[in-house]
Amino acid sequence: MDILQVVSPLVCTSRIPGLDRVGLRVLKDRNGQLQVATDPVGCHPGNWVFTASGSAARWAMGNYAVLSDLTIVGIIDQWDDGQTDAKE
Amino acid sequence: MDILQVVSPLVCTSRIPGLDRVGLRVLKDRNGQLQVATDPVGCHPGNWVFTASGSAARWAMGNYAVLSDLTIVGIIDQWDDGQTDAKE
Amino acid sequence: MDILQVVSPLVCTSRIPGLDRVGLRVLKDRNGQLQVATDPVGCHPGNWVFTASGSAARWAMGNYAVLSDLTIVGIIDQWDDGQTDAKE
Amino acid sequence: MDILQVVSPLVCTSRIPGLDRVGLRVLKDRNGQLQVATDPVGCHPGNWVFTASGSAARWAMGNYAVLSDLTIVGIIDQWDDGQTDAKE
Amino acid sequence: MDILQVVSPLVCTSRIPGLDRVGLRVLKDRNGQLQVATDPVGCHPGNWVFTASGSAARWAMGNYAVLSDLTIVGIIDQWDDGQTDAKE
Repeated sequence: MDILQVVSPLVCTSRIPGLDRVGLRVLKDRNGQLQVATDPVGCHPGNWVFTASGSAARWAMGNYAVLSDLTIVGIIDQWDDGQTDAKE
Repeated sequence: MDILQVVSPLVCTSRIPGLDRVGLRVLKDRNGQLQVATDPVGCHPGNWVFTASGSAARWAMGNYAVLSDLTIVGIIDQWDDGQTDAKE
Repeated sequence: MDILQVVSPLVCTSRIPGLDRVGLRVLKDRNGQLQVATDPVGCHPGNWVFTASGSAARWAMGNYAVLSDLTIVGIIDQWDDGQTDAKE
Repeated sequence: MDILQVVSPLVCTSRIPGLDRVGLRVLKDRNGQLQVATDPVGCHPGNWVFTASGSAARWAMGNYAVLSDLTIVGIIDQWDDGQTDAKE
Repeated sequence: MDILQVVSPLVCTSRIPGLDRVGLRVLKDRNGQLQVATDPVGCHPGNWVFTASGSAARWAMGNYAVLSDLTIVGIIDQWDDGQTDAKE
């Protein structure tokens, strides 16, 4: 499971039915590489989170019909990447 | 889910039955790396999109018999990679 | 799905039963990185192809018992990587 | 399966139900890249371990309902990366 | 499927039940990056092999209960990476 930081929500009106009404977050890794994840936890910009990929991402949404390949599965209580402190 | 930009349709007459009659798009990431994805959304060159990989790519086509491993699942309303603005 | 170029067939007499009698191809990406794929399409050295990975690779062989994780799913009609022209 | 070294437990009070009561470890590879894995083996900081990813990670927990995509599946008896000796 | 060279067996007394009694090999790629794979073929240090990942790795063991995510599926008859010749 990867360790990533929440950047912002993702605004996206045109999406497939399988992602209808699901909260999407833009995340970045330590190199600034961006990804999009579904969020069943309720995290905020600046939070450090870890994510599950593959079919676990769909089970983690509590609904296998959600067609995500990356889901936030936990907010890290305390994380310091040397630049930013993340507090839950 | 990765964030990629649509480059062009892919012209490919010789393909397996499982990809028959499916729209294919060439996408690139910020480093110029190219990939091919199936498109159930209907996007255009220049659009910034995000994609689902793995088995989610097949479910996202609305037909598990479509043998894709990468499917466009949404068009991002507004995206600026510093070089190009993507409008839905 | 990745875009790769066919280098050669792979000669391999010692293999698991699940890959018995399957055509194998060595492919390379633009950085020269090599991979092995199963080929249900019938492609030739120099062809540019695109590939499906994961469980889609097995379904793409038309036989889920073929234990591939990478299968050629189409030959690109025209591709120019700046070095080589690929013609179907 | 990747070879990684255990850094520390991960403290994370806010997590999805599918990871409830599961031991989480922060691991690093030889480049210092960090990941989070579930631990059914019981390893300690400094141990060199190897991990299974994908759906194997869930089966490896002995409970498919654990929504991990990376699980520690063994502790390496002796490993020397040139910097650190790992002893079981 | 990746092309890798066998380095050595992996000594690992503490492992999950799903990898009990399975032969493990340390493999390296051309950049020296190491991985661990299960071996149903019977290969030797110095052999060049190719591997299946994901769920194919479990099927390739002939036993889906073996919790590998990387399995050696064939020994390449002849391979020259510019440094080492591999003979079956």
